[in-house]
Amino acid sequence: MRLSRYFLPVLKETPADAQIASHRLMLRAGMVKQQAAGIYSWLPLGFKVLNRIEQIVNEEQQRAGHIPLLMPTLQSAELWRESGRYDAYGDELLRITDRHKREMLYGPTNEEMITDIFRSHVNSYKDLPLTLYHIQWKFRDEVRPRFGVMRGREFLMKDGYNFDLTKEDALHAYNRHLVSYLRTYERMGLQAIPMRADSGPIGGDDTHEFLVLADTGESEVFYDSEITDLKFGDREIDYDNVEQLQGVLEEFTSRYARTDETHDEAVFAKVPEERRRTARGIEVGQIFYFGTKYSEPMGATVVGPDGARTPVHMGSHGIGVSRLVGAIIEANHDDKGIIWPEGVTPFDVGIVNLKQGDASTDSACEALYRELKAKGLDPLYDDRDERAGAKFATMDLIGLPWRITVGPRGLASNTVELTSRRTGESEELSAEAAVNRLAEIYAPVKAAAFA
Amino acid sequence: MRLSRYFLPVLKETPADAQIASHRLMLRAGMVKQQAAGIYSWLPLGFKVLNRIEQIVNEEQQRAGHIPLLMPTLQSAELWRESGRYDAYGDELLRITDRHKREMLYGPTNEEMITDIFRSHVNSYKDLPLTLYHIQWKFRDEVRPRFGVMRGREFLMKDGYNFDLTKEDALHAYNRHLVSYLRTYERMGLQAIPMRADSGPIGGDDTHEFLVLADTGESEVFYDSEITDLKFGDREIDYDNVEQLQGVLEEFTSRYARTDETHDEAVFAKVPEERRRTARGIEVGQIFYFGTKYSEPMGATVVGPDGARTPVHMGSHGIGVSRLVGAIIEANHDDKGIIWPEGVTPFDVGIVNLKQGDASTDSACEALYRELKAKGLDPLYDDRDERAGAKFATMDLIGLPWRITVGPRGLASNTVELTSRRTGESEELSAEAAVNRLAEIYAPVKAAAFA
Repeated sequence: MRLSRYFLPVLKETPADAQIASHRLMLRAGMVKQQAAGIYSWLPLGFKVLNRIEQIVNEEQQRAGHIPLLMPTLQSAELWRESGRYDAYGDELLRITDRHKREMLYGPTNEEMITDIFRSHVNSYKDLPLTLYHIQWKFRDEVRPRFGVMRGREFLMKDGYNFDLTKEDALHAYNRHLVSYLRTYERMGLQAIPMRADSGPIGGDDTHEFLVLADTGESEVFYDSEITDLKFGDREIDYDNVEQLQGVLEEFTSRYARTDETHDEAVFAKVPEERRRTARGIEVGQIFYFGTKYSEPMGATVVGPDGARTPVHMGSHGIGVSRLVGAIIEANHDDKGIIWPEGVTPFDVGIVNLKQGDASTDSACEALYRELKAKGLDPLYDDRDERAGAKFATMDLIGLPWRITVGPRGLASNTVELTSRRTGESEELSAEAAVNRLAEIYAPVKAAAFA
Repeated sequence: MRLSRYFLPVLKETPADAQIASHRLMLRAGMVKQQAAGIYSWLPLGFKVLNRIEQIVNEEQQRAGHIPLLMPTLQSAELWRESGRYDAYGDELLRITDRHKREMLYGPTNEEMITDIFRSHVNSYKDLPLTLYHIQWKFRDEVRPRFGVMRGREFLMKDGYNFDLTKEDALHAYNRHLVSYLRTYERMGLQAIPMRADSGPIGGDDTHEFLVLADTGESEVFYDSEITDLKFGDREIDYDNVEQLQGVLEEFTSRYARTDETHDEAVFAKVPEERRRTARGIEVGQIFYFGTKYSEPMGATVVGPDGARTPVHMGSHGIGVSRLVGAIIEANHDDKGIIWPEGVTPFDVGIVNLKQGDASTDSACEALYRELKAKGLDPLYDDRDERAGAKFATMDLIGLPWRITVGPRGLASNTVELTSRRTGESEELSAEAAVNRLAEIYAPVKAAAFA
């Protein structure tokens, strides 16, 4: 993309009402614009990051064998009366009346609707196991929306639902989600720690929240420091292998790690003192096993191998897709701006032309742009007629992990400058070598994508 | 995808309340499920088609230089009061009140919001031309929703908005949309004819609707038969070339083609009688130039080259993404089911194993499945333990354009059977030759995708 043809409305001033770094930086970098309290437009740069996150979530869900569909944003109140949640949910549920005075709501979650889909179409245990998921906009009418997209009202979530014949099978589905989530967050450059949590209005016994450590996190968390040494890495996973997934669950959840909701001082005291940590965390996902809580009242049953009808065991599993954009920034920024991990960056590399309008720098930049694209990379070329300082400041603010600077002095010795946004270190090398280096850097990101 | 692990709830019986073919077939093929009047869940097969259509729209918009962003589904009433549409829009506007008694609405279109984004961030004519678009769910509270996704209440639309300094520039943007739409529909296997139309509640003078001819269309249309001979084809387009695009506009709009809203019997009478056609059409898109209708009341101005502030010239341009799924089926089906064009089919090819459980047919099917995937094709393998007749009926119903049948008799002579859904013709050939044939058939589809 050429910046002269893009829409990147960066702000010079820091918005006064933005209290946390991600909110400030998303406004300054022209990623979002607030349209109403807790409701945002995703401007092109922000939307691009949102798409990359969504794509990683999709790939990892499908790798785990989960099947995408799409439920609508509006639901009928009728369905929520069946589960008893229409009256129980409180003021955060946005209730709507249509022209025919029918009661509806803007879905904050989809347990009822997916259970309705299941009971309408599935009849036999032979069609299990089944996990369906969607990535759809939700609404939660927060009394005081704040922190930008971190606590918005209209938000994008991936929510998946498993249907299984037995509790045992459903716990395997739970483990599939845990493992796929570990992998998902690592691809985004995040360490998200599964912590024992409280089930809240979804219900159920088994539940883990995934938390990213950050000073601005909304939850206080308590954990054994050994847990931050765990890496999922590129291990081979067979999602049908019950023992393997149970092993991963145990590896990642056997150490103490809890939010303030479930924290137990007596248990925590057994962790060796030098490994006890207290910090703050941002919740970026949660998985639940809740058995027959919805299937029983709503009649979601299957005929089992013995010919008898039995309610299915279910769980639900969410990833906060729009919230992740904020969480990633909270964990990756400095005073100058955002520092995107390679896995989610909106553009792979920025090209800064130091002397726009000069025939030789212009043509060197154009050639570089083409060669990067030929390698499957996605460059943002700052071809505006602006001072170098302004171009650097924009690149630092929007946080592309790599920058190539092209100027007459370097070109005289056939070099360009490749700079890492994270370390600030620069290297002079030929344009060809710079392209090859970037292709190498991004090779693991491309390889992680689902074929 | 293996069918035994997919969620494809086909119905044996024709739903009684579905009046048109696309609605019946989408229900029978397990593509959608109605959740409330005019509100649907997109089950996995339907969602896959929806995604393919969305991807083509995205690719062609970006090819034309238009920039994606995403506006929220809910909007504040305040914004619509500025344009005067809050009171004018009538009962189809779904009005919502939040917990703080603020008036909101579920957006049926986004002229106001995009104008607000523009006026907040753009100040100079140097930032023009600019065209922003999004693909987002909309709501129109139809008094009598019907025909499935063809006239639903919650629907997916691509809506794009151009901002230009002059009327002339805005008409070039209009032409960019016309050309990109012709290309978009052709990639979906549709002939959509641009017809002079009425602007309705969007406003403006210049507008064309794109109509697909089909007996079940909601509009009566009148046209010169020469227009159906026009093909966009794979011509090279430079979207910055004003004359070239004007030439395409003239080529595709100079012949008589109007909907009942703008039909003029006296002008139609001048078309030679043997070329006069009356038919029905389904509207799948519309483009508008409306000048300063929104920019003036909402203060969307730029500083021009002369230093004076001037309201920008705008247009809006829509493609009915969810409606297209229905329109494509209306134009492509027979008594047995859907017949997908290659450009939008949910799976490229179906594999039918005639003797599931037989070691040699199973392994031949598995090998075929892997080889198709290795060629970048997306097969659906019916690996269920079902009779051949049931497998064929399912494949015909869901309408994959190609089917490979694998059975013991063919394998004895090293052949499989490749069948066209459209013609019903079959050919016996080696598995390798079948894979190569399919790769050839789909090569133009893959080549049309935006690199």
